[in-house]
Amino acid sequence: MMTVLTGGTGGAKLIEGLILEIDPDGLVIVCNTADDSVLHGLYISPDTDTIMYTLAGLSDDRQGWGIRGDTFTVLEQLENYGCSTWFKLGDRDLATHILRTKLMRQGLSLAQATETLCRSLGVATKVIPMSDDRVETRIATADGDISFQEYFVKQKWHPEVRRVSYSGVATSRPAPGVLHAIREASAVIICPSNPVTSIGPILAVPGVRAALRETAAPVVAVSPMIGDTAISGPAHKLMAAQGFEASAYGIARGYADFLGAFVVDYADSDLKPRIAALGLSVHVTSIRMASVAEKRRLAREVLALVE
Amino acid sequence: MMTVLTGGTGGAKLIEGLILEIDPDGLVIVCNTADDSVLHGLYISPDTDTIMYTLAGLSDDRQGWGIRGDTFTVLEQLENYGCSTWFKLGDRDLATHILRTKLMRQGLSLAQATETLCRSLGVATKVIPMSDDRVETRIATADGDISFQEYFVKQKWHPEVRRVSYSGVATSRPAPGVLHAIREASAVIICPSNPVTSIGPILAVPGVRAALRETAAPVVAVSPMIGDTAISGPAHKLMAAQGFEASAYGIARGYADFLGAFVVDYADSDLKPRIAALGLSVHVTSIRMASVAEKRRLAREVLALVE
Repeated sequence: MMTVLTGGTGGAKLIEGLILEIDPDGLVIVCNTADDSVLHGLYISPDTDTIMYTLAGLSDDRQGWGIRGDTFTVLEQLENYGCSTWFKLGDRDLATHILRTKLMRQGLSLAQATETLCRSLGVATKVIPMSDDRVETRIATADGDISFQEYFVKQKWHPEVRRVSYSGVATSRPAPGVLHAIREASAVIICPSNPVTSIGPILAVPGVRAALRETAAPVVAVSPMIGDTAISGPAHKLMAAQGFEASAYGIARGYADFLGAFVVDYADSDLKPRIAALGLSVHVTSIRMASVAEKRRLAREVLALVE
Repeated sequence: MMTVLTGGTGGAKLIEGLILEIDPDGLVIVCNTADDSVLHGLYISPDTDTIMYTLAGLSDDRQGWGIRGDTFTVLEQLENYGCSTWFKLGDRDLATHILRTKLMRQGLSLAQATETLCRSLGVATKVIPMSDDRVETRIATADGDISFQEYFVKQKWHPEVRRVSYSGVATSRPAPGVLHAIREASAVIICPSNPVTSIGPILAVPGVRAALRETAAPVVAVSPMIGDTAISGPAHKLMAAQGFEASAYGIARGYADFLGAFVVDYADSDLKPRIAALGLSVHVTSIRMASVAEKRRLAREVLALVE
């Protein structure tokens, strides 16, 4: 069993490569849920959905979220009703949220609802939300606290970030199977996801970081940064706000207490000595994954590191 | 103020005619809600929606329900998830159910949620659900009790009906404004709707029938039957099960305690003496409403009866 910790878009690319290289049912994927929110009365779990759609072969690779070829008719009508529609929810995607909300109102946990959705889509890989408890990434700006989706989608990561916090995380518990999946893994892979708002919340769930430190499995991470900028999204801005150096080195330092190996881009080869000085083995390669071939190649390299 | 009691399809046709003849904001429409149900976790109010869409100019006249030109993408995906999809919910229609469910979960009553939806669609006419309490038409068949939608839509009115009951009606209260709208009306119009499953539940809400008996306003009804068959739907089957004669006369007899005038089809002119013997004035005309012109003409005739 190989265990993967991930957010949405960036992680989904590596996972797409991984399931082309190894048996999908040998993977356990632990997803960030700190971007989950309730919109139009429906429970939305953006990262879990992106990963689930990727595993089901439904994902929209161009956008990095949602279902390929989806339409937006419901959202148009909600807009006619005067609803706020800055968060784009496609029609097929909404079916997921409608069903998940129904299952959770019937008493299923988020993890159980996720399992039901995955089974219906024929997903063989086990997808586990990091926690069944509500944890919410809050972005403190000059104009007050906003959710990550408000910051990222609605305000297009323009506001200056003062601080990032994970509301509810201190009292949250890892979802059933999360700690076991880390402790008993043959390898743990940390995806090239935002270290502050995707991997950060998973690490902050009580018990997860300790399990990563204690597991006998090799732990390898892929950098989501090239130079001082994230490949996609605002990771560098959020890292700076949290007092991290906005670079692959800054990430390696944040993970150093549990990490064995770190994969960085050729462009960051100059960081190799500094990262190595943290006690990590450093693998330098191309970390951009613009094509399926690149996803597979990077997945193969990561797998070689843990074998 | 003119007050209209209605179910879905048949009533919507007459209402479409009425709002072309009189000022729409001079009408109050009391809708049957005994066909309401929760599907996919969403609160659906089929008759209220049909009337609301008709008043907003959105209705699908060909089908008699839903929004014109609607698509069914969400439902397709729900089917992929293994959900039961015999009740056809279009994408735009689903926006209504999503928003209504959200509003009701926030604490709004069905009547308040309906008012919000109508306002957003620019509907000037006041639409009131018969009750904010859950009342459900139950159809007793040889294979057990089913809802009206299960009988009508899923089983296409094939099972033999033993009895019809309105679960919850005894303890229900009329929604705010319903009794006032009947008592203070200048006229009350009973639409050509199913007397057992559309008008029946409204009449069974405690206080409604008494208000109809007591109001000083003329009360006129339009027959939904021609000969021994309903113009559309299974009214005749349900009437027979309830011990009514399946004819315009059977309906007139059921309404006689509060009705002043009854509109029947030319094909039923032979029933005129029997209906008149109930103490009602009888108006014979063509009650089919296949075109907008026919809807307007029938509306004009009904308005002339109450003026």
